[in-house]
Amino acid sequence: MTQFIGTSDIRTLLETIGIEPFLAGLADYVEADFRRWEMFEKAARLASHSRDGVIELMPASDGELYAMKFVNGHPKNTGEGKLTVTAFGVLADVATGYPLLVSEMTILTALRTAATSAVAARALARPGAQVLALIGAGAQSEFQALAFRALLGIAEVRVFDLDTEAVDKFCHNLAGSGLRIHRAASTADAVAGADIVTTATATKARAAVLTPEMIQPGVHLNAIGGDCPGKTELHPDVVAAASVFTEFTPQTRIEGEIQQMAPDFGVTELWQVLTGNAPGRRTATEVTLFDSVGFAVEDFSTLRYVRDLTRGAVRDIDLVPELDDPKDLFGLAVPAHRPVPASVLEDVLAG
Amino acid sequence: MTQFIGTSDIRTLLETIGIEPFLAGLADYVEADFRRWEMFEKAARLASHSRDGVIELMPASDGELYAMKFVNGHPKNTGEGKLTVTAFGVLADVATGYPLLVSEMTILTALRTAATSAVAARALARPGAQVLALIGAGAQSEFQALAFRALLGIAEVRVFDLDTEAVDKFCHNLAGSGLRIHRAASTADAVAGADIVTTATATKARAAVLTPEMIQPGVHLNAIGGDCPGKTELHPDVVAAASVFTEFTPQTRIEGEIQQMAPDFGVTELWQVLTGNAPGRRTATEVTLFDSVGFAVEDFSTLRYVRDLTRGAVRDIDLVPELDDPKDLFGLAVPAHRPVPASVLEDVLAG
Repeated sequence: MTQFIGTSDIRTLLETIGIEPFLAGLADYVEADFRRWEMFEKAARLASHSRDGVIELMPASDGELYAMKFVNGHPKNTGEGKLTVTAFGVLADVATGYPLLVSEMTILTALRTAATSAVAARALARPGAQVLALIGAGAQSEFQALAFRALLGIAEVRVFDLDTEAVDKFCHNLAGSGLRIHRAASTADAVAGADIVTTATATKARAAVLTPEMIQPGVHLNAIGGDCPGKTELHPDVVAAASVFTEFTPQTRIEGEIQQMAPDFGVTELWQVLTGNAPGRRTATEVTLFDSVGFAVEDFSTLRYVRDLTRGAVRDIDLVPELDDPKDLFGLAVPAHRPVPASVLEDVLAG
Repeated sequence: MTQFIGTSDIRTLLETIGIEPFLAGLADYVEADFRRWEMFEKAARLASHSRDGVIELMPASDGELYAMKFVNGHPKNTGEGKLTVTAFGVLADVATGYPLLVSEMTILTALRTAATSAVAARALARPGAQVLALIGAGAQSEFQALAFRALLGIAEVRVFDLDTEAVDKFCHNLAGSGLRIHRAASTADAVAGADIVTTATATKARAAVLTPEMIQPGVHLNAIGGDCPGKTELHPDVVAAASVFTEFTPQTRIEGEIQQMAPDFGVTELWQVLTGNAPGRRTATEVTLFDSVGFAVEDFSTLRYVRDLTRGAVRDIDLVPELDDPKDLFGLAVPAHRPVPASVLEDVLAG
């Protein structure tokens, strides 16, 4: 049987394990898969664009497991009480092609994005980082704050969003977390004194949420809101002055902040830093930028993680037939045709 | 909530409706979608090849609904009591990107292949066809026989397979069907006097199951076993002499019988015949060939059909979160963080 993990299972899992331990464990899986990056079969997402949004399929395989995420992006959805982004994923056995697991991935995508951000920052930010600035208090914001505390020991979060209700929600959700939270008056106020800056705004066009004069030497920038063609968050001069790190560069050149740069703008892939094949931060004053757009390998790691966490403890669904005789699909599909009197059968066989 | 249709639901549906009425209804959906072929967003399958098989994603959309089939092909599986081909599908709402339905498609793919074969034959075979030859008594064979009876009124099936156990299974499964079944001694014996010939063999290489001297004037050939590069069933002279009809020609040139022909070999797409934009059979002696490899639009039609058949009467699964506030994903994911004393909250907000 195929295992099924629904949203209620993920909630139970987070409640049981605790969200920060969950994020720390997930980060280990993500980092482990980045360290064996070259083993993966990687492909660009397969997108279907429509008037109000996009549906994308994101596959990845390491030769043993195959993962596929189905994810949509429909900004208008919130007006109808629906989520802008929903997702689900499938993990399959490469040797047989059988699906092992179908899982919700709306919540898991938020968790994996935060875990990946923290994995990158752990490798690229200055040691001892204490203060995180969050520009944008949307769906990703709380996950970012907790992932950075779980992985880097962040103690203070400086948050800014033009939407003060979003900031209220952020403060409310993290009230019991123990993090020091500063409601910033502006992006500049949020960024002042921060060791790490995450930009996660919902801007739909070329924006310049961060401009050069806000950038302090040695800061690590984690830009996750610019994730499709025509949508960027950083002033091009901020990108040009930073050491830029990517997930899968061919995709980032189309979707990330570096879509503003020349096609040969120099970048380093994160897996190269994590494996020691390329340097990360070289000086305490260098500005590092993780230009993150999300990649299928991160979803692969996430499905692998929840499968290991839940193995055998979730619902089974009959997604694939179980047959006595794998050559007799019809007999399975139409059992009513099976019990035939022997005399009739012999007539037919003689026919 | 998202609906789930498992293998048990399909069995119940087939038992309740009857397999031939199910096939006839499915054929109507397939034909209706072929008639509006130009409305569909069509893409080649996205394949991931491995040592023992392939996993493919097959998307299609008409601008209102989006369908995606996940299908594998692993010939070695039968040795382990598993199916060579399994599949499941997803139907989503284009306007919101939300998945509406997750369904098994192993059985449904067998049904849709047979329904599509019969739709093509209804348009291309000589009127009054009574005799079907089946070369290959594998997983697809019973579905073919019943679809041709349901749609064309076929009364006799002449079956041949090198594997006599497969023929036993075929005869056993269709014993109560009322079809006259002739166990042929050879392919030539099966084909003799047939109005329609379906080839559905498991040959893994260039084969010549049908050779020119077997082909009688006016026969309709339904070649469904050659469906990947390097795998064909018909002698090239049989293909060259026939009027050839395809599903989605760019895919058929790679995967179908016409991979043996020059890249500019003339073909007609089935939708053109069904809409009256191109002629089908022109004479009673012409040999017509439906060079079928299976296309995503047929899976789209199938998911649309079972959704209409089962609407509201199947299991719900919590694949996508339902939120009070679509901007508060964290609050849904981590409910334990929500109940915070007002005093604590105020401290934080003042922070």
